[in-house]
Amino acid sequence: MSEEASVKVWADPLRDFSARVFEKMGVPPDDAAVTADVLVAANLRGIDSHGVARLKRYVNGLCDGVMVARPDIEIVHETPGTALIDGGAGLGQPVGVRGMKLAIAKAQEMGVGFVAVRNSNHYGIAGYYSMMALREELIGISMTNAAVLVVPTFGKDAVLGTNPVSVAAPTGEERPFVLDMATSTVSRGKLEVYDRQEKPLPLGWATDEQGVTTTDARRVLDNLLARAGGGLLPLGGEGELLRGYKGYGLTLLVDILSGVLPGAGYATTIYPKTPEGKPLPANVGHFFGAIRIDAFRPLDEFKATMDDIIRRLKGSARAEGAERIYVHGEKEFEEEERRRREGIPLHPKTVAMMQQIARELGVEYDL
Amino acid sequence: MSEEASVKVWADPLRDFSARVFEKMGVPPDDAAVTADVLVAANLRGIDSHGVARLKRYVNGLCDGVMVARPDIEIVHETPGTALIDGGAGLGQPVGVRGMKLAIAKAQEMGVGFVAVRNSNHYGIAGYYSMMALREELIGISMTNAAVLVVPTFGKDAVLGTNPVSVAAPTGEERPFVLDMATSTVSRGKLEVYDRQEKPLPLGWATDEQGVTTTDARRVLDNLLARAGGGLLPLGGEGELLRGYKGYGLTLLVDILSGVLPGAGYATTIYPKTPEGKPLPANVGHFFGAIRIDAFRPLDEFKATMDDIIRRLKGSARAEGAERIYVHGEKEFEEEERRRREGIPLHPKTVAMMQQIARELGVEYDL
Repeated sequence: MSEEASVKVWADPLRDFSARVFEKMGVPPDDAAVTADVLVAANLRGIDSHGVARLKRYVNGLCDGVMVARPDIEIVHETPGTALIDGGAGLGQPVGVRGMKLAIAKAQEMGVGFVAVRNSNHYGIAGYYSMMALREELIGISMTNAAVLVVPTFGKDAVLGTNPVSVAAPTGEERPFVLDMATSTVSRGKLEVYDRQEKPLPLGWATDEQGVTTTDARRVLDNLLARAGGGLLPLGGEGELLRGYKGYGLTLLVDILSGVLPGAGYATTIYPKTPEGKPLPANVGHFFGAIRIDAFRPLDEFKATMDDIIRRLKGSARAEGAERIYVHGEKEFEEEERRRREGIPLHPKTVAMMQQIARELGVEYDL
Repeated sequence: MSEEASVKVWADPLRDFSARVFEKMGVPPDDAAVTADVLVAANLRGIDSHGVARLKRYVNGLCDGVMVARPDIEIVHETPGTALIDGGAGLGQPVGVRGMKLAIAKAQEMGVGFVAVRNSNHYGIAGYYSMMALREELIGISMTNAAVLVVPTFGKDAVLGTNPVSVAAPTGEERPFVLDMATSTVSRGKLEVYDRQEKPLPLGWATDEQGVTTTDARRVLDNLLARAGGGLLPLGGEGELLRGYKGYGLTLLVDILSGVLPGAGYATTIYPKTPEGKPLPANVGHFFGAIRIDAFRPLDEFKATMDDIIRRLKGSARAEGAERIYVHGEKEFEEEERRRREGIPLHPKTVAMMQQIARELGVEYDL
């Protein structure tokens, strides 16, 4: 998880500190608390790339005005089963939570509810929102588009984001099913890890400026920054051999549902800049859904069957050399238990960044 | 497409012949016509593994009584946005079309509609149903579980099906987006092609009886028949390197929505047999959804944006050596145009099988 010496902190003070930072930036207390909770939830689940390590980017966005601290969040259009929300260029987390809550309320009334959000920003881990449905014993769906990093099959240039999708389903005695995955093979963060460790990339993760799969992480990262061609490959890798076009199709599907459908940015129109290169509001889009299980079959039957399918998978014979068969979300639940017990390991650079933010904003740092 | 010398036939008489076969087996004329249409639609789109080549399996199923010619199809439960349908162990196509129509009707009323089906059979290509939504200018969703062929990540035995998912979205001037993909890397049919041609499988497609990726197609096919271990790999291949657990998660997700949610078969409980090895009704499950676009934003805006994202993708720079960037469904639409113009190429074995069915059932063969 953490590749270098790390500092351990506890979730509660980390959440409080993050909330204080957002409040200091003018974010209303409730929204600040929600945003901090989404970030720390990522750290707890071991997804450090989407945790407090991103704090600086949010602070910068709020400083620059491309993220609005007190946005006008508006329900633009509504039907019994759907809604479109405009996020007013605010933080992605508060409007994300609002959107998912509305999807849940609609599902409770109509059996299913879907809410699309436009004019938003990075909303953290997709799984935070899908898992909100678990508390109500619903199936939850969450997806978002994202900054351009992914090349389409047979393409040379990055045109799509890593566009993650998450679906969560309740269980009885087993841990809930929580699929939470970027639709690219890996994320940019993973390339950064390989670059720092000077390890060659596996072929099938990323392409160079000619659009050919490469082992050189630094080159891919530099090319992405310079928009010089190449980028991350969709799930299934390069070309058609291992069916990279299926991953590309999933990436595009997420952009259609969370970008095109709500009228948010999409493909290369997301994260726009002025002709002078100054960032404009990112216009990220999200798509949330909730499905009431007893709209189909009794909840207790569903949960018992979920337990059974999970046990069939985990109890099935293992491949040579394999120790364990996992079900999605399981590793993250275990990591969360460990980190609640032992603390959250933070990279020294993340700690230094938070201390600098504390000094600059005059916020107490007590971790 | 067709690996050996083939016979060309036209879509209309092929559909009529297939419908006559189903009628002769006792299927009501409307259901026979629908089932034939789904099969021939697969042939037209170039997905021959799901076309009339499967006719014999349906005839056998109807003969054996594991598929019911005149099932009692029943809406078991309904809310404004959802329904659960019991297919009465009938053919998958008629109940599939009925399920998708109901999802569309609910979406037109409520903004979104989702319908799950239990106690069904193989329903043909997933894309047939998602594309039904296009005629109404809706987004269509279709998925189904299937016979056990796929190994979970780190598993040795096949526990899940190739569980396909399809999503279709309307466009303006461009061809519609039609994603229609098995969540495994490849289908069993693809292994059969490699076996016939005595070609080594690419690593990452399938595993042997130890659960290790293999190039030996015959061995995988024999093992699957004998339930001796091994099977098809999920999208992303073996282990974690290229993120096969994401494909495994998608396969499982489809089984949760189309198997567990409606109370159909799932994992290894699908296609059950008696202790003596006699097949019982397969209890396949499906999941259909429809989303009304103007529940979110005006349809003409959506369609114009769909055209734009497709043009951005297709017009982006190509990787070295690549001729063209595709959008999902495009190849199949082009194949359909070609086959409507030039005829549908059928494998000689498929023709012989159909002629035998015609003789045995006393149905006119006029292709």
